[in-house]
Amino acid sequence: MTTEETDGRRLRGDRSRAHILDHAIAIASVEGLEGITIGRLAAEAGVSKGNITVLFGDKESLQIATFLRVMERFREAVVLPAAARRTPLDRLLAWIDNWYDFVEARVLPGGCFLNAVSSEYRARPGRIRDTINSYRHAGLARLREWIEAAKEAGQLLPDTDVQALAFSLLAYQTSANVASLMGDDALFKTARLLSRQRVLAQAVAAPRSRRRKPAIA
Amino acid sequence: MTTEETDGRRLRGDRSRAHILDHAIAIASVEGLEGITIGRLAAEAGVSKGNITVLFGDKESLQIATFLRVMERFREAVVLPAAARRTPLDRLLAWIDNWYDFVEARVLPGGCFLNAVSSEYRARPGRIRDTINSYRHAGLARLREWIEAAKEAGQLLPDTDVQALAFSLLAYQTSANVASLMGDDALFKTARLLSRQRVLAQAVAAPRSRRRKPAIA
Repeated sequence: MTTEETDGRRLRGDRSRAHILDHAIAIASVEGLEGITIGRLAAEAGVSKGNITVLFGDKESLQIATFLRVMERFREAVVLPAAARRTPLDRLLAWIDNWYDFVEARVLPGGCFLNAVSSEYRARPGRIRDTINSYRHAGLARLREWIEAAKEAGQLLPDTDVQALAFSLLAYQTSANVASLMGDDALFKTARLLSRQRVLAQAVAAPRSRRRKPAIA
Repeated sequence: MTTEETDGRRLRGDRSRAHILDHAIAIASVEGLEGITIGRLAAEAGVSKGNITVLFGDKESLQIATFLRVMERFREAVVLPAAARRTPLDRLLAWIDNWYDFVEARVLPGGCFLNAVSSEYRARPGRIRDTINSYRHAGLARLREWIEAAKEAGQLLPDTDVQALAFSLLAYQTSANVASLMGDDALFKTARLLSRQRVLAQAVAAPRSRRRKPAIA
């Protein structure tokens, strides 16, 4: 086989994979990863069951591939633009805004996927739950790091309780995700506002003057 | 048919119903209400599918009956003992403790059912979601009432933000429920501690002296 043929095959495989994953994400966002079956996905994506098995392996591997693809998209939409901000405090505030924007805009019909599948698999030990947990823990660790960095940079007060603030911000998101999808817009707004308030209450500089600084992304 | 015969029939029906619901709760606590099918439940409870249909109707009605039965048990274990406390502040603090005790003790293998099914049905409109939502809203309303009552009784500071406090306490529970089942005990403890702190930070009397008062349940 020539290199060109191999590349062509790989490209078709990648496209096929992406096409199937798009359908898998649409199902899982609303009905959970347990809503995915190879038969149903084949019907909805218009491909053969054999094709899905060749590309992804068994059902569990397909579910994990679906989860990882959503985490990639979430990272691109929420985490990376925040991480690119100049100061730790800007990163924190941008991450809050990006998350609430992401859910409000219904980028996914079921909102924040990590929160949804964490609840779905909370009592189901196994490979899927282990994978979800590694992302939950990494998300908490990153958030704690940014809060620590903001303290070290003198942007947040030295008495800031890192664990309490990180837990609060994540808890508000967890609750806001359900509230948003349930149509409780007032609770969703409360969550966004409270998240900013919890951070700004610990900020050393007055928020107004801080906001005037040019944002370098 | 004599009255005795009718009573006997009703009793057997009630027992059968309770037996089937126990199995339905065990399934739904771990796998969600969508994990319930009449066929599976018949096999696990050792009854006929026809028997389940006669007692509960269709699958959706069975799912709702399961949800309502768990809400009853939750009400008996968490809400009523708190509501029986003498003052609004005692009610609030008892409700917090009872909830965390309920989840920690694994009264249900999947923890807080209302939080779990709220996430499960957040993006699935219909009769089940409407029923779940009426309980979510009633829970929030009751919590807001207790906080308002504590303000009016002079137990919480007049500047207490009722919506923010109520939302925070519920959000901590939502996140703690997942954390507990995922084995993140430190986060679960943080949630319980933060919940008490948020309330006590708004308390007018010093917590130490308040706690010394004899608790009249």
